[in-house]
Amino acid sequence: MLYSVRMRAAQDDAHEKGGKHISGAERLVSQERLPAVVTAMLRRALFHSRGTADFINLTVETVLNENIQAVACLPIATVAVPNVAAGRAAAQVELIKAGVAPAAVAAGIKALAELKGSLRGAMLVDAQTGVRLDDNGERGIRVSRMDIADKQAYLCWLNRQGHSNIHIQEAVVLASKVMSAPGVAAELCWSDDPEYVTGYVSTPMLYTRFTQLKPYGSPIGGRIFFIKENTDLEQLTDYLQYQPVLINVPAEEASVDAIFD
Amino acid sequence: MLYSVRMRAAQDDAHEKGGKHISGAERLVSQERLPAVVTAMLRRALFHSRGTADFINLTVETVLNENIQAVACLPIATVAVPNVAAGRAAAQVELIKAGVAPAAVAAGIKALAELKGSLRGAMLVDAQTGVRLDDNGERGIRVSRMDIADKQAYLCWLNRQGHSNIHIQEAVVLASKVMSAPGVAAELCWSDDPEYVTGYVSTPMLYTRFTQLKPYGSPIGGRIFFIKENTDLEQLTDYLQYQPVLINVPAEEASVDAIFD
Repeated sequence: MLYSVRMRAAQDDAHEKGGKHISGAERLVSQERLPAVVTAMLRRALFHSRGTADFINLTVETVLNENIQAVACLPIATVAVPNVAAGRAAAQVELIKAGVAPAAVAAGIKALAELKGSLRGAMLVDAQTGVRLDDNGERGIRVSRMDIADKQAYLCWLNRQGHSNIHIQEAVVLASKVMSAPGVAAELCWSDDPEYVTGYVSTPMLYTRFTQLKPYGSPIGGRIFFIKENTDLEQLTDYLQYQPVLINVPAEEASVDAIFD
Repeated sequence: MLYSVRMRAAQDDAHEKGGKHISGAERLVSQERLPAVVTAMLRRALFHSRGTADFINLTVETVLNENIQAVACLPIATVAVPNVAAGRAAAQVELIKAGVAPAAVAAGIKALAELKGSLRGAMLVDAQTGVRLDDNGERGIRVSRMDIADKQAYLCWLNRQGHSNIHIQEAVVLASKVMSAPGVAAELCWSDDPEYVTGYVSTPMLYTRFTQLKPYGSPIGGRIFFIKENTDLEQLTDYLQYQPVLINVPAEEASVDAIFD
């Protein structure tokens, strides 16, 4: 049995009462690791680069082993770009290669770029028309109940590829779950951390980082999931929110960065 | 600045989805004590005599010092009784002395005794008519945002009177806040811990324990606040739920048990 631990932190008031989103986190851990994980989440909410939280909600829930689905971790590629415009142009190409219509890609990038505040969850956007499919506003769809199966192996695997920050650690786990969901063509994301300008596009085959997808200092970020035609949205959001998933590091451990050198 | 930490734990599912209430806790603590307090609450929810929680909700919220009200701790008396019937009869006398009408006392005891499941919060009952005033069902009114100002002094004070269990530690803090609320005449409570049969009546002057108020083994408990006429219920529930209160141990530290010897 594992425990799903979910944290969300806000400033000024709770999210649902208009507070500013500060941070969120998702883990699936054993009982003996629960105290350490919860303490680390509290610390993170209290000392976050987006500000100090004055409202933190933590939910701990048991998850039966037989309900947990194993999913392979996406391989990681990095594309260095000289500026935000070049980063977004390169991300656009990657999304189109994944089958997202050019108009939908443009609509998605525009939607993220024009956000007035950060999205807590993701927008679901039609991969052909670019129309937003969920009606959750700034809340979006939060991907929940996932973690890496073997954290040490994962950190080693990331470190060997030169990745050590918390953003990529968490984003690759989330993106791997999202890409295993029924009907998702691709994801586009950049962070709400004002100091973190790298963003990514993920497809069912690859997680591609672009070193600049938003201007330095911007506290606004979010993610878009591009959804294929004829997808059952209820089944999809159910999977994203409630299906417990443990991500396994790829057996083939060579960095895919090589192909971009 | 302090942090209000509130925990509620349930079995089978969240409370709002019909799960069985396992435990709850309330603290007001400094930032450095936050991790230890949260860890202790988790441990308590996971290893409770009422069962193992599989849903735990923790809320952490900042509280400004200037909003905290100081309230004196109620003195404690203990009445040893030979059985539940004698305990309830003695509690009845204490409630009537506090100004609760005999019919309202009888209605209150009956309501607690006939509960089908434990109340998470308290029932508000009219001290004259015995009619229930809140419409919160099994949820009741939860008293929140209170703690003891100096925990070590409090534990010493309790220990010198021979009290060392967690139930009395928490109940005296809660009762002291409740008795400082506008319009509360008295409180009657027994625990939902199947192993803990001692209950209490508190009045604005005294917290009186009765050594048997419910049958051993019963997992059903709850509390009733008897409310005076013409009380503004909205103001009262607002105080009970939202007013941060720190309880101070009495300067006069002699045990009032003496008066019953």
